[in-house]
Amino acid sequence: MISAIILAAGNSTRMGGVNKQFLKLGGEPVLLRSVQAFLWVKEVGEILVVCRREDWGETADLLGNLPKVRVVPCGGETRQQSMENALGYLYPLCDMIAVHDGARPLIRPEDIEKTIAAAKKTGGAVLGVKAKDTVKVVREGKVVFTPDRSELFCAQTPQVFKLDAYREAVKRVKEKGLDLTDDAGIFEAAGMEVAAVEGHYDNIKITTPEDLPAAEAMLALQPEWVMEEIDEEGF
Amino acid sequence: MISAIILAAGNSTRMGGVNKQFLKLGGEPVLLRSVQAFLWVKEVGEILVVCRREDWGETADLLGNLPKVRVVPCGGETRQQSMENALGYLYPLCDMIAVHDGARPLIRPEDIEKTIAAAKKTGGAVLGVKAKDTVKVVREGKVVFTPDRSELFCAQTPQVFKLDAYREAVKRVKEKGLDLTDDAGIFEAAGMEVAAVEGHYDNIKITTPEDLPAAEAMLALQPEWVMEEIDEEGF
Repeated sequence: MISAIILAAGNSTRMGGVNKQFLKLGGEPVLLRSVQAFLWVKEVGEILVVCRREDWGETADLLGNLPKVRVVPCGGETRQQSMENALGYLYPLCDMIAVHDGARPLIRPEDIEKTIAAAKKTGGAVLGVKAKDTVKVVREGKVVFTPDRSELFCAQTPQVFKLDAYREAVKRVKEKGLDLTDDAGIFEAAGMEVAAVEGHYDNIKITTPEDLPAAEAMLALQPEWVMEEIDEEGF
Repeated sequence: MISAIILAAGNSTRMGGVNKQFLKLGGEPVLLRSVQAFLWVKEVGEILVVCRREDWGETADLLGNLPKVRVVPCGGETRQQSMENALGYLYPLCDMIAVHDGARPLIRPEDIEKTIAAAKKTGGAVLGVKAKDTVKVVREGKVVFTPDRSELFCAQTPQVFKLDAYREAVKRVKEKGLDLTDDAGIFEAAGMEVAAVEGHYDNIKITTPEDLPAAEAMLALQPEWVMEEIDEEGF
Protein backbone atom coordinates (compact mmCIF):
# COMPACT_ATOMS: atom_id res chain seq x y z
CA MET A 1 0.00 0.00 0.00
CA ILE A 2 1.17 3.52 -0.80
CA SER A 3 0.90 6.28 1.77
CA ALA A 4 1.09 9.91 0.71
CA ILE A 5 2.84 12.25 3.12
CA ILE A 6 1.87 15.88 2.51
CA LEU A 7 4.25 18.30 4.22
CA ALA A 8 2.42 21.41 5.35
CA ALA A 9 4.52 22.45 8.34
CA GLY A 10 6.68 25.11 6.68
CA ASN A 11 7.05 28.44 8.41
CA SER A 12 6.31 30.58 5.32
CA THR A 13 8.99 33.13 6.12
CA ARG A 14 9.43 33.89 2.42
CA MET A 15 5.68 34.58 2.19
CA GLY A 16 5.85 37.34 4.82
CA GLY A 17 4.67 35.10 7.68
CA VAL A 18 1.30 34.26 6.07
CA ASN A 19 0.63 30.51 6.06
CA LYS A 20 0.72 29.79 2.35
CA GLN A 21 -1.16 26.51 2.78
CA PHE A 22 -4.40 28.37 3.48
CA LEU A 23 -4.12 30.97 0.75
CA LYS A 24 -6.81 30.52 -1.89
CA LEU A 25 -6.10 29.36 -5.40
CA GLY A 26 -9.08 29.26 -7.75
CA GLY A 27 -11.29 29.77 -4.69
CA GLU A 28 -9.88 26.80 -2.75
CA PRO A 29 -7.08 26.63 -0.18
CA VAL A 30 -3.72 25.62 -1.67
CA LEU A 31 -3.38 22.67 0.72
CA LEU A 32 -6.83 21.30 -0.16
CA ARG A 33 -5.89 21.22 -3.86
CA SER A 34 -2.60 19.46 -3.11
CA VAL A 35 -4.41 16.79 -1.12
CA GLN A 36 -7.20 16.33 -3.67
CA ALA A 37 -4.75 15.33 -6.40
CA PHE A 38 -3.73 12.34 -4.28
CA LEU A 39 -7.36 11.36 -3.72
CA TRP A 40 -7.54 10.78 -7.48
CA VAL A 41 -4.75 8.21 -7.38
CA LYS A 42 -6.30 4.83 -6.63
CA GLU A 43 -3.11 3.20 -5.38
CA VAL A 44 -2.78 5.73 -2.57
CA GLY A 45 -4.36 4.13 0.48
CA GLU A 46 -3.87 6.90 3.02
CA ILE A 47 -2.87 10.55 3.06
CA LEU A 48 -0.99 11.89 6.08
CA VAL A 49 -0.95 15.68 6.22
CA VAL A 50 1.79 16.97 8.52
CA CYS A 51 1.09 20.45 9.88
CA ARG A 52 2.41 22.68 12.66
CA ARG A 53 0.85 22.06 16.03
CA GLU A 54 -0.71 25.54 16.10
CA ASP A 55 -2.34 24.93 12.69
CA TRP A 56 -3.81 21.56 13.59
CA GLY A 57 -7.35 22.82 14.29
CA GLU A 58 -7.65 24.79 11.08
CA THR A 59 -6.08 22.01 9.00
CA ALA A 60 -8.32 19.33 10.49
CA ASP A 61 -11.38 21.52 9.83
CA LEU A 62 -10.31 21.87 6.21
CA LEU A 63 -9.40 18.25 5.48
CA GLY A 64 -10.88 16.12 8.25
CA ASN A 65 -13.94 15.03 6.26
CA LEU A 66 -12.01 13.78 3.24
CA PRO A 67 -11.64 10.00 2.85
CA LYS A 68 -8.19 8.48 3.54
CA VAL A 69 -6.88 11.72 5.10
CA ARG A 70 -5.30 11.96 8.54
CA VAL A 71 -3.97 15.28 9.87
CA VAL A 72 -0.83 14.87 11.96
CA PRO A 73 0.56 17.68 14.12
CA CYS A 74 4.32 18.11 14.18
CA GLY A 75 6.55 19.95 16.59
CA GLY A 76 9.62 19.58 14.38
CA GLU A 77 11.38 22.57 12.92
CA THR A 78 12.87 20.96 9.83
CA ARG A 79 11.56 19.01 6.88
CA GLN A 80 13.45 15.98 8.11
CA GLN A 81 11.76 16.20 11.52
CA SER A 82 8.35 16.49 9.83
CA MET A 83 9.17 13.37 7.85
CA GLU A 84 10.27 11.37 10.87
CA ASN A 85 7.14 12.40 12.68
CA ALA A 86 5.00 11.27 9.74
CA LEU A 87 6.75 7.90 9.47
CA GLY A 88 5.56 7.09 12.98
CA TYR A 89 1.91 7.44 11.89
CA LEU A 90 2.08 5.22 8.79
CA TYR A 91 -0.45 2.44 8.34
CA PRO A 92 1.35 -0.85 9.12
CA LEU A 93 0.77 -2.33 5.64
CA CYS A 94 2.37 0.68 3.91
CA ASP A 95 5.34 -0.35 1.79
CA MET A 96 5.84 2.81 -0.27
CA ILE A 97 5.67 6.54 0.52
CA ALA A 98 4.92 9.46 -1.80
CA VAL A 99 6.20 12.67 -0.21
CA HIS A 100 4.66 15.91 -1.49
CA ASP A 101 4.84 19.60 -0.62
CA GLY A 102 1.51 20.95 0.60
CA ALA A 103 2.34 24.13 -1.29
CA ARG A 104 2.39 22.43 -4.73
CA PRO A 105 -1.32 22.57 -5.56
CA LEU A 106 -0.98 22.18 -9.34
CA ILE A 107 0.30 18.61 -9.22
CA ARG A 108 -1.56 16.34 -11.66
CA PRO A 109 -2.77 12.89 -10.63
CA GLU A 110 -1.18 11.34 -13.74
CA ASP A 111 2.23 12.72 -12.76
CA ILE A 112 1.86 11.22 -9.29
CA GLU A 113 1.09 7.89 -10.97
CA LYS A 114 4.12 8.15 -13.27
CA THR A 115 6.41 8.82 -10.31
CA ILE A 116 4.99 5.88 -8.39
CA ALA A 117 5.50 3.60 -11.40
CA ALA A 118 9.17 4.65 -11.67
CA ALA A 119 9.81 4.15 -7.96
CA LYS A 120 8.43 0.62 -8.16
CA LYS A 121 11.27 -0.18 -10.56
CA THR A 122 14.20 1.66 -9.00
CA GLY A 123 13.21 2.02 -5.34
CA GLY A 124 13.14 5.82 -5.51
CA ALA A 125 11.85 8.42 -7.98
CA VAL A 126 11.53 12.18 -8.10
CA LEU A 127 9.23 14.26 -10.30
CA GLY A 128 10.65 17.39 -11.91
CA VAL A 129 11.38 19.27 -15.10
CA LYS A 130 14.40 20.04 -17.24
CA ALA A 131 16.04 23.30 -16.20
CA LYS A 132 15.05 26.20 -18.46
CA ASP A 133 17.52 28.62 -16.94
CA THR A 134 21.26 28.52 -17.14
CA VAL A 135 22.27 27.67 -13.58
CA LYS A 136 25.59 28.83 -12.15
CA VAL A 137 27.46 27.91 -9.02
CA VAL A 138 28.24 31.16 -7.18
CA ARG A 139 30.56 31.73 -4.22
CA GLU A 140 30.99 35.12 -2.60
CA GLY A 141 29.12 36.86 -5.42
CA LYS A 142 31.30 35.41 -8.19
CA VAL A 143 30.46 32.69 -10.69
CA VAL A 144 32.75 29.72 -10.11
CA PHE A 145 31.22 27.11 -12.41
CA THR A 146 28.42 26.64 -14.95
CA PRO A 147 27.18 23.04 -15.10
CA ASP A 148 25.91 21.70 -18.43
CA ARG A 149 22.27 22.80 -18.60
CA SER A 150 21.20 19.79 -20.64
CA GLU A 151 21.89 17.57 -17.63
CA LEU A 152 20.09 19.73 -15.07
CA PHE A 153 16.77 18.71 -13.62
CA CYS A 154 14.71 20.84 -11.23
CA ALA A 155 13.29 18.54 -8.58
CA GLN A 156 9.66 18.97 -7.58
CA THR A 157 7.45 16.65 -5.60
CA PRO A 158 6.11 14.00 -5.24
CA GLN A 159 9.22 12.02 -4.43
CA VAL A 160 8.33 8.36 -4.06
CA PHE A 161 10.30 5.67 -2.23
CA LYS A 162 10.00 2.07 -1.18
CA LEU A 163 9.60 2.38 2.58
CA ASP A 164 12.22 -0.19 3.59
CA ALA A 165 14.82 1.45 1.38
CA TYR A 166 13.89 4.92 2.64
CA ARG A 167 14.28 3.87 6.28
CA GLU A 168 17.63 2.28 5.48
CA ALA A 169 18.73 5.45 3.64
CA VAL A 170 17.80 7.68 6.59
CA LYS A 171 19.77 5.39 8.89
CA ARG A 172 22.88 5.49 6.70
CA VAL A 173 22.69 9.27 6.30
CA LYS A 174 22.37 9.75 10.06
CA GLU A 175 25.40 7.57 10.63
CA LYS A 176 27.30 9.91 8.33
CA GLY A 177 26.09 12.85 10.43
CA LEU A 178 24.40 14.61 7.48
CA ASP A 179 21.17 16.61 7.74
CA LEU A 180 19.48 16.84 4.36
CA THR A 181 16.46 18.89 3.33
CA ASP A 182 15.71 16.86 0.23
CA ASP A 183 14.36 13.31 0.50
CA ALA A 184 15.76 12.16 -2.81
CA GLY A 185 19.08 13.58 -1.58
CA ILE A 186 18.92 11.28 1.43
CA PHE A 187 18.45 8.35 -0.92
CA GLU A 188 21.35 9.47 -3.12
CA ALA A 189 23.66 10.12 -0.15
CA ALA A 190 22.97 6.56 0.96
CA GLY A 191 24.15 5.35 -2.45
CA MET A 192 20.69 4.31 -3.68
CA GLU A 193 19.31 4.88 -7.15
CA VAL A 194 16.76 7.65 -7.80
CA ALA A 195 14.92 7.91 -11.13
CA ALA A 196 14.16 11.36 -12.52
CA VAL A 197 10.60 11.52 -13.90
CA GLU A 198 9.64 14.36 -16.21
CA GLY A 199 6.49 16.22 -15.21
CA HIS A 200 5.11 19.67 -15.93
CA TYR A 201 6.51 23.17 -15.46
CA ASP A 202 3.34 24.38 -13.76
CA ASN A 203 3.86 22.15 -10.68
CA ILE A 204 5.40 25.10 -8.84
CA LYS A 205 5.80 25.50 -5.09
CA ILE A 206 4.04 28.54 -3.70
CA THR A 207 7.04 30.17 -2.00
CA THR A 208 7.22 33.90 -2.68
CA PRO A 209 4.39 36.44 -3.20
CA GLU A 210 4.55 36.43 -7.02
CA ASP A 211 3.95 32.68 -7.11
CA LEU A 212 0.27 32.86 -6.18
CA PRO A 213 -1.03 34.98 -9.08
CA ALA A 214 1.23 32.99 -11.42
CA ALA A 215 -0.27 29.75 -10.11
CA GLU A 216 -3.73 31.25 -10.55
CA ALA A 217 -2.98 31.94 -14.20
CA MET A 218 -1.56 28.44 -14.75
CA LEU A 219 -4.54 26.85 -13.03
CA ALA A 220 -6.84 28.54 -15.54
CA LEU A 221 -4.86 26.87 -18.34
CA GLN A 222 -4.57 23.45 -16.73
CA PRO A 223 -7.93 21.74 -17.43
CA GLU A 224 -7.48 22.31 -21.16
CA TRP A 225 -4.05 20.63 -21.13
CA VAL A 226 -5.34 17.72 -19.14
CA MET A 227 -8.11 17.25 -21.71
CA GLU A 228 -5.59 17.37 -24.55
CA GLU A 229 -3.40 14.76 -22.94
CA ILE A 230 -6.30 12.43 -22.42
CA ASP A 231 -7.30 12.89 -26.08
CA GLU A 232 -3.79 12.14 -27.27
CA GLU A 233 -3.64 8.91 -25.38
CA GLY A 234 -6.95 7.88 -26.89
CA PHE A 235 -9.14 7.67 -23.80
CA MET B 1 29.00 54.44 -23.73
CA ILE B 2 26.84 51.40 -23.05
CA SER B 3 25.01 49.65 -25.87
CA ALA B 4 22.11 47.33 -25.15
CA ILE B 5 21.82 44.29 -27.40
CA ILE B 6 18.33 42.82 -27.31
CA LEU B 7 18.20 39.31 -28.76
CA ALA B 8 14.89 38.68 -30.50
CA ALA B 9 15.92 36.14 -33.13
CA GLY B 10 14.88 32.93 -31.35
CA ASN B 11 12.83 30.42 -33.28
CA SER B 12 10.16 29.90 -30.60
CA THR B 13 9.96 26.15 -31.12
CA ARG B 14 8.93 25.67 -27.49
CA MET B 15 6.09 28.17 -28.02
CA GLY B 16 4.57 26.07 -30.82
CA GLY B 17 6.10 28.16 -33.62
CA VAL B 18 4.42 31.44 -32.60
CA ASN B 19 6.93 34.29 -32.37
CA LYS B 20 6.83 35.00 -28.65
CA GLN B 21 8.32 38.47 -29.12
CA PHE B 22 5.05 39.76 -30.57
CA LEU B 23 2.69 38.15 -28.09
CA LYS B 24 0.91 40.74 -25.96
CA LEU B 25 1.58 41.22 -22.28
CA GLY B 26 -0.60 43.77 -20.52
CA GLY B 27 -1.74 44.91 -23.97
CA GLU B 28 1.78 45.52 -25.34
CA PRO B 29 4.09 43.23 -27.32
CA VAL B 30 6.61 41.40 -25.16
CA LEU B 31 9.55 42.78 -27.15
CA LEU B 32 8.37 46.39 -26.81
CA ARG B 33 8.30 46.03 -23.00
CA SER B 34 11.80 44.52 -22.95
CA VAL B 35 13.13 47.42 -25.00
CA GLN B 36 11.33 50.10 -22.99
CA ALA B 37 13.06 49.06 -19.76
CA PHE B 38 16.40 49.95 -21.38
CA LEU B 39 15.07 53.33 -22.51
CA TRP B 40 14.69 54.17 -18.81
CA VAL B 41 18.39 53.61 -18.16
CA LYS B 42 20.21 56.87 -18.85
CA GLU B 43 23.63 55.31 -19.34
CA VAL B 44 22.41 53.21 -22.26
CA GLY B 45 23.25 55.18 -25.40
CA GLU B 46 21.88 52.85 -28.04
CA ILE B 47 19.68 49.78 -28.22
CA LEU B 48 20.34 47.23 -30.95
CA VAL B 49 17.46 44.81 -31.44
CA VAL B 50 18.56 41.68 -33.30
CA CYS B 51 15.70 39.92 -35.09
CA ARG B 52 15.30 37.28 -37.77
CA ARG B 53 15.47 38.58 -41.31
CA GLU B 54 11.84 37.59 -41.97
CA ASP B 55 10.68 39.53 -38.87
CA TRP B 56 12.57 42.70 -39.72
CA GLY B 57 9.60 44.59 -41.17
CA GLU B 58 7.28 43.87 -38.29
CA THR B 59 9.98 44.57 -35.71
CA ALA B 60 10.97 47.87 -37.33
CA ASP B 61 7.31 48.91 -37.45
CA LEU B 62 7.01 48.17 -33.73
CA LEU B 63 10.23 49.81 -32.52
CA GLY B 64 11.49 52.05 -35.31
CA ASN B 65 10.12 55.27 -33.83
CA LEU B 66 11.69 54.83 -30.40
CA PRO B 67 14.75 56.94 -29.60
CA LYS B 68 18.15 55.17 -29.49
CA VAL B 69 16.72 51.99 -31.07
CA ARG B 70 18.15 50.29 -34.16
CA VAL B 71 16.63 47.09 -35.53
CA VAL B 72 19.24 44.74 -36.95
CA PRO B 73 18.31 41.71 -39.07
CA CYS B 74 20.27 38.52 -38.49
CA GLY B 75 20.65 35.43 -40.61
CA GLY B 76 22.37 33.48 -37.84
CA GLU B 77 20.86 30.36 -36.36
CA THR B 78 22.42 30.48 -32.91
CA ARG B 79 22.58 32.98 -30.09
CA GLN B 80 26.29 33.31 -30.65
CA GLN B 81 25.74 34.18 -34.32
CA SER B 82 23.13 36.79 -33.34
CA MET B 83 25.67 38.28 -30.95
CA GLU B 84 28.46 38.43 -33.52
CA ASN B 85 26.11 40.05 -35.96
CA ALA B 86 25.13 42.68 -33.39
CA LEU B 87 28.75 43.45 -32.48
CA GLY B 88 29.31 44.58 -36.07
CA TYR B 89 26.63 47.26 -35.71
CA LEU B 90 27.88 48.79 -32.43
CA TYR B 91 28.40 52.54 -32.21
CA PRO B 92 32.18 53.13 -32.32
CA LEU B 93 32.33 54.79 -28.88
CA CYS B 94 30.64 51.85 -27.18
CA ASP B 95 32.83 50.37 -24.44
CA MET B 96 30.31 48.17 -22.64
CA ILE B 97 27.47 45.91 -23.80
CA ALA B 98 24.31 44.86 -21.94
CA VAL B 99 22.90 41.71 -23.55
CA HIS B 100 19.22 41.00 -22.88
CA ASP B 101 16.64 38.46 -24.04
CA GLY B 102 13.81 40.09 -25.97
CA ALA B 103 11.51 37.59 -24.26
CA ARG B 104 12.21 38.94 -20.73
CA PRO B 105 9.69 41.79 -20.63
CA LEU B 106 9.49 42.11 -16.84
CA ILE B 107 13.05 43.34 -16.39
CA ARG B 108 13.21 46.41 -14.13
CA PRO B 109 15.35 49.42 -15.03
CA GLU B 110 16.94 49.43 -11.56
CA ASP B 111 18.11 45.84 -12.01
CA ILE B 112 19.70 46.78 -15.34
CA GLU B 113 21.51 49.60 -13.53
CA LYS B 114 22.70 47.29 -10.73
CA THR B 115 24.13 44.85 -13.26
CA ILE B 116 25.90 47.62 -15.14
CA ALA B 117 27.41 48.91 -11.89
CA ALA B 118 28.76 45.44 -11.04
CA ALA B 119 30.24 44.93 -14.53
CA LYS B 120 32.10 48.22 -14.25
CA LYS B 121 33.98 46.73 -11.31
CA THR B 122 34.62 43.17 -12.46
CA GLY B 123 34.42 43.40 -16.25
CA GLY B 124 31.41 41.07 -16.45
CA ALA B 125 28.15 40.66 -14.50
CA VAL B 126 25.03 38.57 -14.80
CA LEU B 127 21.62 39.24 -13.26
CA GLY B 128 19.75 36.33 -11.71
CA VAL B 129 18.14 34.86 -8.63
CA LYS B 130 18.97 32.24 -6.04
CA ALA B 131 17.63 28.82 -7.04
CA LYS B 132 14.37 27.98 -5.30
CA ASP B 133 14.28 24.40 -6.53
CA THR B 134 16.60 21.60 -5.63
CA VAL B 135 18.53 21.03 -8.84
CA LYS B 136 19.89 17.61 -9.72
CA VAL B 137 22.34 16.44 -12.34
CA VAL B 138 20.63 13.64 -14.29
CA ARG B 139 22.16 11.23 -16.79
CA GLU B 140 20.08 8.60 -18.61
CA GLY B 141 17.09 9.22 -16.35
CA LYS B 142 19.01 8.70 -13.11
CA VAL B 143 20.14 11.28 -10.58
CA VAL B 144 23.93 11.32 -10.45
CA PHE B 145 24.60 14.35 -8.26
CA THR B 146 22.80 17.04 -6.26
CA PRO B 147 24.80 20.27 -6.01
CA ASP B 148 24.44 22.39 -2.87
CA ARG B 149 21.35 24.53 -3.49
CA SER B 150 22.63 27.44 -1.42
CA GLU B 151 25.35 28.03 -4.04
CA LEU B 152 23.05 27.83 -7.08
CA PHE B 153 22.11 30.92 -9.02
CA CYS B 154 19.66 30.96 -11.94
CA ALA B 155 21.09 33.27 -14.59
CA GLN B 156 18.74 35.72 -16.27
CA THR B 157 19.57 38.71 -18.41
CA PRO B 158 20.87 41.38 -18.78
CA GLN B 159 24.45 40.15 -18.79
CA VAL B 160 26.80 43.10 -18.98
CA PHE B 161 30.42 43.09 -20.18
CA LYS B 162 33.23 45.49 -20.92
CA LEU B 163 33.44 45.29 -24.69
CA ASP B 164 37.21 44.77 -24.95
CA ALA B 165 37.09 41.94 -22.47
CA TYR B 166 34.08 40.37 -24.20
CA ARG B 167 35.82 40.42 -27.59
CA GLU B 168 38.91 38.88 -26.04
CA ALA B 169 36.78 36.20 -24.34
CA VAL B 170 35.05 35.28 -27.61
CA LYS B 171 38.45 35.00 -29.28
CA ARG B 172 39.82 32.70 -26.57
CA VAL B 173 36.71 30.52 -26.57
CA LYS B 174 36.84 30.15 -30.36
CA GLU B 175 40.48 29.11 -30.15
CA LYS B 176 39.40 26.37 -27.76
CA GLY B 177 36.77 25.30 -30.31
CA LEU B 178 33.85 25.76 -27.89
CA ASP B 179 30.40 26.97 -28.92
CA LEU B 180 28.55 28.43 -25.96
CA THR B 181 24.95 29.55 -25.70
CA ASP B 182 25.49 31.66 -22.61
CA ASP B 183 27.46 34.93 -22.80
CA ALA B 184 28.58 34.85 -19.19
CA GLY B 185 29.71 31.28 -19.91
CA ILE B 186 31.96 32.60 -22.69
CA PHE B 187 33.52 34.99 -20.20
CA GLU B 188 33.99 32.25 -17.62
CA ALA B 189 35.44 29.80 -20.16
CA ALA B 190 37.98 32.48 -21.04
CA GLY B 191 39.00 32.61 -17.38
CA MET B 192 37.48 36.04 -16.71
CA GLU B 193 35.55 37.03 -13.62
CA VAL B 194 31.75 37.34 -13.71
CA ALA B 195 29.82 38.89 -10.82
CA ALA B 196 26.42 37.43 -9.91
CA VAL B 197 23.89 40.21 -9.23
CA GLU B 198 20.69 39.38 -7.41
CA GLY B 199 17.53 40.57 -9.15
CA HIS B 200 13.87 39.53 -9.01
CA TYR B 201 12.10 36.22 -9.55
CA ASP B 202 9.58 37.77 -11.90
CA ASN B 203 12.19 38.50 -14.62
CA ILE B 204 11.19 35.30 -16.41
CA LYS B 205 11.82 34.41 -20.02
CA ILE B 206 8.67 33.73 -21.99
CA THR B 207 9.54 30.25 -23.26
CA THR B 208 6.64 27.82 -22.90
CA PRO B 209 2.87 28.47 -23.16
CA GLU B 210 2.25 28.67 -19.40
CA ASP B 211 4.77 31.50 -19.07
CA LEU B 212 2.58 34.16 -20.66
CA PRO B 213 -0.38 34.08 -18.26
CA ALA B 214 2.10 33.78 -15.39
CA ALA B 215 3.93 36.88 -16.63
CA GLU B 216 0.59 38.65 -16.99
CA ALA B 217 -0.17 37.96 -13.34
CA MET B 218 3.29 39.09 -12.22
CA LEU B 219 3.04 42.26 -14.29
CA ALA B 220 -0.13 43.19 -12.43
CA LEU B 221 1.83 42.94 -9.16
CA GLN B 222 4.96 44.69 -10.31
CA PRO B 223 4.21 48.41 -9.91
CA GLU B 224 3.22 47.85 -6.28
CA TRP B 225 6.55 46.15 -5.52
CA VAL B 226 8.49 48.88 -7.20
CA MET B 227 6.71 51.40 -4.98
CA GLU B 228 7.49 49.37 -1.88
CA GLU B 229 11.14 49.15 -2.73
CA ILE B 230 11.39 52.85 -3.29
CA ASP B 231 9.72 53.44 0.09
CA GLU B 232 12.11 51.09 1.88
CA GLU B 233 15.13 52.82 0.51
CA GLY B 234 13.73 56.14 1.64
CA PHE B 235 13.29 57.91 -1.69
